Amino acid sequence: MATRTVDLRSDTVTKPTEAMRTAMANADVDDDVLGHDPTCFRLETEMAKIMGKEAALFVPSGTMANLISVLVHCDIRGSEVILGDNSHIHIYENGGIATIGGVHPRTVRNNEDGTMDIDLIEAAIRNPNLELIYPTTRLICLENTHGNSGGRCLSVEYTERVGEVAKKHGLKLHIDGARIFNASVALGVPVDRLVQAADSVSVCLSKGLGAPVGSVIVGSSSFIAKARRLRKTLGGGMRQVGILCAAALVALQDIVGELESDHKKARTLADGLNQIKGLRVDTSSVETNIVYIEIKEGSGTTAAKLSKDLENYGVLLMPLGSSKIRVVFHHQISDSDVQYALSCFQQAVNGVGNENGN
Amino acid sequence: MATRTVDLRSDTVTKPTEAMRTAMANADVDDDVLGHDPTCFRLETEMAKIMGKEAALFVPSGTMANLISVLVHCDIRGSEVILGDNSHIHIYENGGIATIGGVHPRTVRNNEDGTMDIDLIEAAIRNPNLELIYPTTRLICLENTHGNSGGRCLSVEYTERVGEVAKKHGLKLHIDGARIFNASVALGVPVDRLVQAADSVSVCLSKGLGAPVGSVIVGSSSFIAKARRLRKTLGGGMRQVGILCAAALVALQDIVGELESDHKKARTLADGLNQIKGLRVDTSSVETNIVYIEIKEGSGTTAAKLSKDLENYGVLLMPLGSSKIRVVFHHQISDSDVQYALSCFQQAVNGVGNENGN
Amino acid sequence: MATRTVDLRSDTVTKPTEAMRTAMANADVDDDVLGHDPTCFRLETEMAKIMGKEAALFVPSGTMANLISVLVHCDIRGSEVILGDNSHIHIYENGGIATIGGVHPRTVRNNEDGTMDIDLIEAAIRNPNLELIYPTTRLICLENTHGNSGGRCLSVEYTERVGEVAKKHGLKLHIDGARIFNASVALGVPVDRLVQAADSVSVCLSKGLGAPVGSVIVGSSSFIAKARRLRKTLGGGMRQVGILCAAALVALQDIVGELESDHKKARTLADGLNQIKGLRVDTSSVETNIVYIEIKEGSGTTAAKLSKDLENYGVLLMPLGSSKIRVVFHHQISDSDVQYALSCFQQAVNGVGNENGN
Amino acid sequence: MATRTVDLRSDTVTKPTEAMRTAMANADVDDDVLGHDPTCFRLETEMAKIMGKEAALFVPSGTMANLISVLVHCDIRGSEVILGDNSHIHIYENGGIATIGGVHPRTVRNNEDGTMDIDLIEAAIRNPNLELIYPTTRLICLENTHGNSGGRCLSVEYTERVGEVAKKHGLKLHIDGARIFNASVALGVPVDRLVQAADSVSVCLSKGLGAPVGSVIVGSSSFIAKARRLRKTLGGGMRQVGILCAAALVALQDIVGELESDHKKARTLADGLNQIKGLRVDTSSVETNIVYIEIKEGSGTTAAKLSKDLENYGVLLMPLGSSKIRVVFHHQISDSDVQYALSCFQQAVNGVGNENGN
Repeated sequence: MATRTVDLRSDTVTKPTEAMRTAMANADVDDDVLGHDPTCFRLETEMAKIMGKEAALFVPSGTMANLISVLVHCDIRGSEVILGDNSHIHIYENGGIATIGGVHPRTVRNNEDGTMDIDLIEAAIRNPNLELIYPTTRLICLENTHGNSGGRCLSVEYTERVGEVAKKHGLKLHIDGARIFNASVALGVPVDRLVQAADSVSVCLSKGLGAPVGSVIVGSSSFIAKARRLRKTLGGGMRQVGILCAAALVALQDIVGELESDHKKARTLADGLNQIKGLRVDTSSVETNIVYIEIKEGSGTTAAKLSKDLENYGVLLMPLGSSKIRVVFHHQISDSDVQYALSCFQQAVNGVGNENGN
Repeated sequence: MATRTVDLRSDTVTKPTEAMRTAMANADVDDDVLGHDPTCFRLETEMAKIMGKEAALFVPSGTMANLISVLVHCDIRGSEVILGDNSHIHIYENGGIATIGGVHPRTVRNNEDGTMDIDLIEAAIRNPNLELIYPTTRLICLENTHGNSGGRCLSVEYTERVGEVAKKHGLKLHIDGARIFNASVALGVPVDRLVQAADSVSVCLSKGLGAPVGSVIVGSSSFIAKARRLRKTLGGGMRQVGILCAAALVALQDIVGELESDHKKARTLADGLNQIKGLRVDTSSVETNIVYIEIKEGSGTTAAKLSKDLENYGVLLMPLGSSKIRVVFHHQISDSDVQYALSCFQQAVNGVGNENGN
Repeated sequence: MATRTVDLRSDTVTKPTEAMRTAMANADVDDDVLGHDPTCFRLETEMAKIMGKEAALFVPSGTMANLISVLVHCDIRGSEVILGDNSHIHIYENGGIATIGGVHPRTVRNNEDGTMDIDLIEAAIRNPNLELIYPTTRLICLENTHGNSGGRCLSVEYTERVGEVAKKHGLKLHIDGARIFNASVALGVPVDRLVQAADSVSVCLSKGLGAPVGSVIVGSSSFIAKARRLRKTLGGGMRQVGILCAAALVALQDIVGELESDHKKARTLADGLNQIKGLRVDTSSVETNIVYIEIKEGSGTTAAKLSKDLENYGVLLMPLGSSKIRVVFHHQISDSDVQYALSCFQQAVNGVGNENGN
Repeated sequence: MATRTVDLRSDTVTKPTEAMRTAMANADVDDDVLGHDPTCFRLETEMAKIMGKEAALFVPSGTMANLISVLVHCDIRGSEVILGDNSHIHIYENGGIATIGGVHPRTVRNNEDGTMDIDLIEAAIRNPNLELIYPTTRLICLENTHGNSGGRCLSVEYTERVGEVAKKHGLKLHIDGARIFNASVALGVPVDRLVQAADSVSVCLSKGLGAPVGSVIVGSSSFIAKARRLRKTLGGGMRQVGILCAAALVALQDIVGELESDHKKARTLADGLNQIKGLRVDTSSVETNIVYIEIKEGSGTTAAKLSKDLENYGVLLMPLGSSKIRVVFHHQISDSDVQYALSCFQQAVNGVGNENGN
């Protein structure tokens, strides 16, 4: 058993900080279903302001945030949503928009940088004159940062261009912004500017921001009113939820400033791994806090084996398929953790210590 | 503005106790979506044991607990559920089982005591030989205590008889046990005995038990495995959820024992109200912590007006229609609160103080 | 084996007349999915005119007619429909409005005459101010004639009163008018007058009207445009459908005039059966072409046995439960068939011939 | 107004032959919802035999045939289907499998020949060990011939390989065989052999086969029993449907033999069009009865304009986008029609008659 744990599986694994725990213990709370919880109200007000939208809604998870957003924009039977074929909503959310919401997904190929070609998006929009045989396109979804592309950022320019396509065709634009603060920091663009073209954004509080639980949806007041109702239908309405929101308020205060440091550590790890024979990281893709590690052929190991070996050192990773490993940084990974992880990789892959490594 | 607040709108309005706050601040937590949060695991293990079922699942709300339970039992397209026409699922949960889950509800009349006649239940079961024109009955739902009947209890005997009907026809039995602990206490029957005939039970932690957030579903291991997956689909999977579960564990420890006292206070209020001209409570219906107050014709007030007037005294109530008011007790209502509320009722209805009242 | 067949199971069992067969053989047809089939267009135009509505749509069945109507009126997720607890839609259509359409049914008790109490309808309408916990009521459904009540008629006055309730609350009114022509004839009211208050009506062509296949939905042009699209989604769009519509046009021409005679025969049978010891018909309920026969206790037979016995005489019936039999008249039952059926009943129940019977 | 009409928009535009009309006029029919229509029974029996499956079901349309097939294979909530991104089900059927059935589609790129790469299919199958975040893959759909690829055929070998992948992963295989007879004829393979690997096949009677209305689903007896029930739910159950089935039986007898001739005419047209400056047909793609015509840049016309111009000659086409036109052959297009159409194309594109053309 390892004496040290460096959990790089995801940025969802953080533990609440002392400040968060204190805030939760002292939170001013009330029944947020019958009325409004004051701390939740503060968080929603703050998030709406930060994101530059009229209103906000706290929900238990990023999956619910996206599910509600898609379903509210597509509240009429026969709706279709355009989204990336490698997007989180399409791949990792149980197909809920169709299996729970009856929304038909139309995928467009995600490029390596997480974008979809604008002309492919436009080509995927259904001709409303042929609605006898077509569903009605109502929504385009982007994901920023784009997880399966290694946490790469969509620029303001790209987002605006998609927003224009949406507007031109009378569609809505939703951004799965689970890690939108990472994008904002990496691009050096205020987050409200980055999502200006969107009608709704889901933001995760329990990923890089380190809050224990929750996501927030932002959008227009009428959108949020519908979202609130659907949250109740899905069972996402919670009573004295201010407990959780108190921690989220601390996260906004304390952790957003740490994201840049997470990104630096990710690059340090990426650079270090590229020094290890048998491993490869496309450093150009490391824009934020995610690193995809490729295990080269002939390295003598596999994603599963290497993950298992590193687990013995207390370094936890997420193997993806046979030759890919995902690593995600968060504020509870220190510089020393990065060095420790690198030395463990070195040892596990090449059977030798760090000293010979780089 | 009243100097004192007696919030009798619902038992969902409680604030977490100091012990709960401390427990939350110190909770041992982990990512409950990637793996298992240890405190959540403790709560689920404990609840499964208390309820006498194989497994348990923590969910954000009672609505999600019921939604998941119904949808898991009715996971095949074309399913029908039999439930009370005055049940919480049918009336207060947005119709989610149909609008989200595509389950067809078939209602049976709820009697004044919250039961449904056994022969009506049996008559509502679809003949499987006529499945060409019928949906397939797969589930019967009971509610114990039954909220809209004033919190009345379903007995073990009644529950078992419904369970036998279910078994005979190859159906499942779900109990909406949001207030099952109240029923257990009122009937003097261990809660596991009370739900023995059920395939699944939803239990609310944030009603009488006073925890800030959450419900638990219990059932067989295979049922809970399916429930866990559907919870993810709905967006009810939460990360470091042990924060909330820590409070729930305290509730199980500290508050269950208070329920009997809640019931006594409810009866005290009921008796007192019956002394006030213009008001009437059917005391025979006050079995647990809910009191339905009827405003007699000629009383000179209405539910809306009386609620408004009492709000000025800091006494918060839930008006239902024009002549009915609901009052619900919880562990943060004291004996003195009851007396205060009674005197406020007296004054508001008869324009005089308590001393002249009874 | 009987030498004569009198099929009284349903009015759906008729064979196309010679005139219908000739019309089908000579029908002018075209692709009704790519464009419009001329004969279908004629039928739809004619039915819209007869029913006094802007537009009409031919569909393969009464079930699809109702399904489309309910789903078009309730095209937004979270909708509820108010309908009779003994209505065809709720009982005999597989629960499709929920299992396929996600519409939440809210039932109101059907009285013996097929009506629902107006105040119960109004009480079932959800308060839109509580939409956080309620689905949204969007539709009321009536059924005229009401099948499970023995084909009894809803009057113009009743229909108008329900229409006023609908209007007052911003709801739509749909009439399941599978046998609306029977009601029109029995009440002596033009059919367009009878459905004037309705936003949509489904009319069956293959019941009393004797066409081989199909129903028609009528309503506003915008409603029918949505219905046409949903028909395509469900797979109800058919190519050279004029074949079927040609027969339906003959039915409108030739068979509507026969309905009064069907009703007379139904009453003759009812009166005759009441002369047979052991059987009972509530003649006051025989308003149109349906007769419910009650088998008295002590009669020495059951619905199943009596149906079986009469089958040996070539008289086909529909047993319902243990002591009830349904008989339905159509234009291919002659006066002589009625007398033959009566004598067979007599013999089967009392073991003696017709001569001793009445 | 043209004196001659050559309708090449689709093979759904045929008019019933005299033999079909006679058969419809004389069809032996009965209520196919209450029991079985004898002519429908004959058709279903015959089609099951031809396709080499246990049972068959007549439905009103190809859309319903596919909808029912997908929904029956995916009858458990949370199902995913793998299908071509350019398949008829995904593009032209209103998204019904999701919007009506709640099935999540996962698309794989359709190659130019209508296939999907086997390894991409296999990669799209969800890992059942990650079912917490994934829907459950239950079905693979192929389309043979593949319409959007110009009616190209999937070989027995390809189909079997996909069948093996399905079997290996416990999935079902459905073939949208709207034009499976065209594939059978073009490949010179008996149709039952061609669909041997499939669990279900939908076959269209009103495309190349020229029947006025209908499709048939074939599969195992238990599959068809479920399909029959779902047909009722959707409203696809029809009463004296033998009328339509009588025509379909004639189509099977008379028209299947004409398909080869349709294919020859398609190639003749394709070759002729390639002689016309400004037009291009990829003749290698013309395997059956569909021809996609490309309008070259600089031709001076567009798909819309050319279609309009040809309409003036009575030649009806289906423009697709700005530079593509679809032509489909059926048994009512003669050799002389092909020559006439070619001369009209020549004139419309090059402004001169056929004699000067090539």
